[in-house]
Amino acid sequence: MRYELYYWPGIQGRGEFVRLALEEAAADYVDVARMPEGDGMGVPALMRLLEDKATGRPPFAPPILKIGKQVIAQTANILLFLGPRLGLVPQAEATRVWAHQLQLTVTDLVAEVHDSHHPIAGGLYYHEQKPEAKRRAGDFRAERLPKFLGYFEDVLGRNGGQYMVGKALSYVDLSMFQVIAGLGYAFPKAMARLRPGWPLLMALHQRVMARPRMAAYLASDRRLPFSTEGVFRHYPELDD
Amino acid sequence: MRYELYYWPGIQGRGEFVRLALEEAAADYVDVARMPEGDGMGVPALMRLLEDKATGRPPFAPPILKIGKQVIAQTANILLFLGPRLGLVPQAEATRVWAHQLQLTVTDLVAEVHDSHHPIAGGLYYHEQKPEAKRRAGDFRAERLPKFLGYFEDVLGRNGGQYMVGKALSYVDLSMFQVIAGLGYAFPKAMARLRPGWPLLMALHQRVMARPRMAAYLASDRRLPFSTEGVFRHYPELDD
Repeated sequence: MRYELYYWPGIQGRGEFVRLALEEAAADYVDVARMPEGDGMGVPALMRLLEDKATGRPPFAPPILKIGKQVIAQTANILLFLGPRLGLVPQAEATRVWAHQLQLTVTDLVAEVHDSHHPIAGGLYYHEQKPEAKRRAGDFRAERLPKFLGYFEDVLGRNGGQYMVGKALSYVDLSMFQVIAGLGYAFPKAMARLRPGWPLLMALHQRVMARPRMAAYLASDRRLPFSTEGVFRHYPELDD
Repeated sequence: MRYELYYWPGIQGRGEFVRLALEEAAADYVDVARMPEGDGMGVPALMRLLEDKATGRPPFAPPILKIGKQVIAQTANILLFLGPRLGLVPQAEATRVWAHQLQLTVTDLVAEVHDSHHPIAGGLYYHEQKPEAKRRAGDFRAERLPKFLGYFEDVLGRNGGQYMVGKALSYVDLSMFQVIAGLGYAFPKAMARLRPGWPLLMALHQRVMARPRMAAYLASDRRLPFSTEGVFRHYPELDD
């Protein structure tokens, strides 16, 4: 079964959390909106899926995963579905619920990262909400970032320090890698200051990056660069 | 098996989405933080659960559901767990994934409602971020609220107009009731203006409210009032 991922081309965004799972599992997938329009793919295919009047289960927003006729949206929900199928979460139900709980907390953090540069409206440009962004990003760096990463560091420590969940790599570890990478891009000074407080997370980030499939993916052109179009954005005035 | 719900007493907040499911199913549950400290409950019991150093799976924040030794956090995750156990979601896996997807979109909406009065920092008072709140609430009423509720109205219509998911009441219907109720409290003028555009949702809200167990719950002192301490807050200056 080939997985079809539908996400805005040109940015990592929330789609990247799904891509990392598919890549680490060497899953058969196609990143539809990044493929040629002439082949029936590209952004028009994404728009057709979003605007499909015939479906009873329309997605609110990308990322969207399509498997045969099943259409699944919401990043954490996609990973909940993919986890067992890709061998990226333990089998026990209670452990899957726990992994999903952590992923939903990652989702909350990512939403706050987004709002650090868009505190007023996602539909306005950054420069239209810059004073508010400076204030919100200041609180994010001082309060929220340490609270979230301190929590994840604690969880990792309680689980022995190697994996976020269970005794093997899970999609939560891949998402944690992405969070650390994105925060390091967006807030290099704040992260340089805070990083020593989270040695386990930093080591996890390094280990995930060094995994053969991850290293190959990150070196490929399938891995888009971070930019000021995505969720993690580097604006020096929002950093320390 | 008795369910233990742990949530801040005095507000409906995110805990209310869980309470509605437990109440509609007539489940055996205790709202721990609202019970007497002398009985080993109350807020100290919530704090002990949050600060438990012995657990390998610490929750980030309430609401938290405890079932025997299992501890589950994140509102939508709790409902994902409870849904099949309380008979509040269809059996088929694909339908449960769809119900959860809708619940996660409710979660996103609720986070945006929160940020309409706290756009800068949850740790600051409303009066410390009032100008920013006015700007964000204006965008929320003009863009986000119509987008979210227009989406849910569309989903309800595609499913026949009676239920959000499947052919019977689910926890998504209960959450939709709470969203409509909360928005009507927080933004009475904007909702009076917009309500005619969502006839199916408004009828769903009425039907849920009239269900015997819901009516009994809403008339009881277990149902806390809306207030300017919760997620849905009425500040006239943030309304139309």
